[in-house]
Amino acid sequence: MNSRRTSPPAPGKTPAPAASPWKASHERQRDREVKRDAVVRAAAREFNRKGYHNTSLDDIAARLEVTKPTVYYYVTSKEQLLFQCFVAGVERIRAAFRDVRQLQLPARERLNAVLRRYGEAVASEFGWCMVRAEEQDLSPAMSRHIKALKSEIDHGIRRLIREGVQDGSIHPCDPKMTAFALAGALNWIAHWYREDQSLSGAQIAEAFVTVFEAGLRPRAGATELGARRESPRRRVRRPSAAARG
Amino acid sequence: MNSRRTSPPAPGKTPAPAASPWKASHERQRDREVKRDAVVRAAAREFNRKGYHNTSLDDIAARLEVTKPTVYYYVTSKEQLLFQCFVAGVERIRAAFRDVRQLQLPARERLNAVLRRYGEAVASEFGWCMVRAEEQDLSPAMSRHIKALKSEIDHGIRRLIREGVQDGSIHPCDPKMTAFALAGALNWIAHWYREDQSLSGAQIAEAFVTVFEAGLRPRAGATELGARRESPRRRVRRPSAAARG
Repeated sequence: MNSRRTSPPAPGKTPAPAASPWKASHERQRDREVKRDAVVRAAAREFNRKGYHNTSLDDIAARLEVTKPTVYYYVTSKEQLLFQCFVAGVERIRAAFRDVRQLQLPARERLNAVLRRYGEAVASEFGWCMVRAEEQDLSPAMSRHIKALKSEIDHGIRRLIREGVQDGSIHPCDPKMTAFALAGALNWIAHWYREDQSLSGAQIAEAFVTVFEAGLRPRAGATELGARRESPRRRVRRPSAAARG
Repeated sequence: MNSRRTSPPAPGKTPAPAASPWKASHERQRDREVKRDAVVRAAAREFNRKGYHNTSLDDIAARLEVTKPTVYYYVTSKEQLLFQCFVAGVERIRAAFRDVRQLQLPARERLNAVLRRYGEAVASEFGWCMVRAEEQDLSPAMSRHIKALKSEIDHGIRRLIREGVQDGSIHPCDPKMTAFALAGALNWIAHWYREDQSLSGAQIAEAFVTVFEAGLRPRAGATELGARRESPRRRVRRPSAAARG
């Protein structure tokens, strides 16, 4: 392999042009996007770690080992960074909705696919900004944009629930309250996920889908076992249970 | 009724002592508690409306139509107010756990009773502080205290879930993930509740318990209806469905 890298161009082939000290326009554009993305990710991690109000552009620059003016080259303000972190996370959920639209599956399975990707997005570095950022910290225009994106996702979930109730794949329910409960459970992952890194974001999302699917009330089989017990309460007091968790 | 209010003491009864211009010690104590409680509630409402960082003690004083020094008479700092708002909300959930401990009911019913009170607490004026306040804004001691209270509640829910799986009243599940999903869904109420005042906090909590109980997968009866349909997907494209919600 090494010999190929150092060998001259094969006879008859045009030699590569001599390298210019300036990058081509499309390369500069791509370079800029990669760096802008790095700034947004660094901001997401800092906001997550210290909260929005306690994070300065200096902190973000320090994390990237660049100066504050370099950060300003890619974004105009901390507010804009928060906004872009939000959008980066939400875009993953929007992509999930687009993907399941093509699938010929019962609505519950399409909903579950969206919920898995939703959970992964919230467990990502953008999770904090997606769910804990306060709209008061953003300009009215940004705040309106975020509200619209949140509403789009909420209504997408409700629509899949309604379709599932119609096609018989989802238990009859109130689509609005069910959508709020599902999204709330998933959004909350951003509050605790760092404290429990033993599972990946995808594993957490899968575990949640299992919980959503089953519900608390025992299902056939489990019901037969439980409901026929003589005493409904078999509890033995274990004072140390709370401590053991 | 009016005549009774203005009538003199009945003959033979000792007349009430002449009113002192100073209140009795216990009255002053109670007066102070009532006012402190009003300060905490006013703070909770302002934090909820404007966010913690965007709220000043001046705003809280203005809401109560008093001066800032008056507020300082009851609390030492804005941070302490945030902490007390948190504790006031969480105390309602702790009381629910104490109350169900006495009940001879299957664990799922005891859990549901706790979840209802939990939902109501989050939908109360203290909801924002309970779930959206950032621990970075509190002193290490306050933050530790809050972490301990949150952990107590989390483990209380897990314990009821484990008991329910044991007594057959709860479908077999992962108690930790299930507790996270339930608490997350309820905590998230604080994020959207003000936007949807058509239902009371108690009604929202009840609707959530219904969702938690049933799960998404159709139950016997509903399953028989749905699962036998020929086409798993009966969806008709309705482009305006998202707009209609």
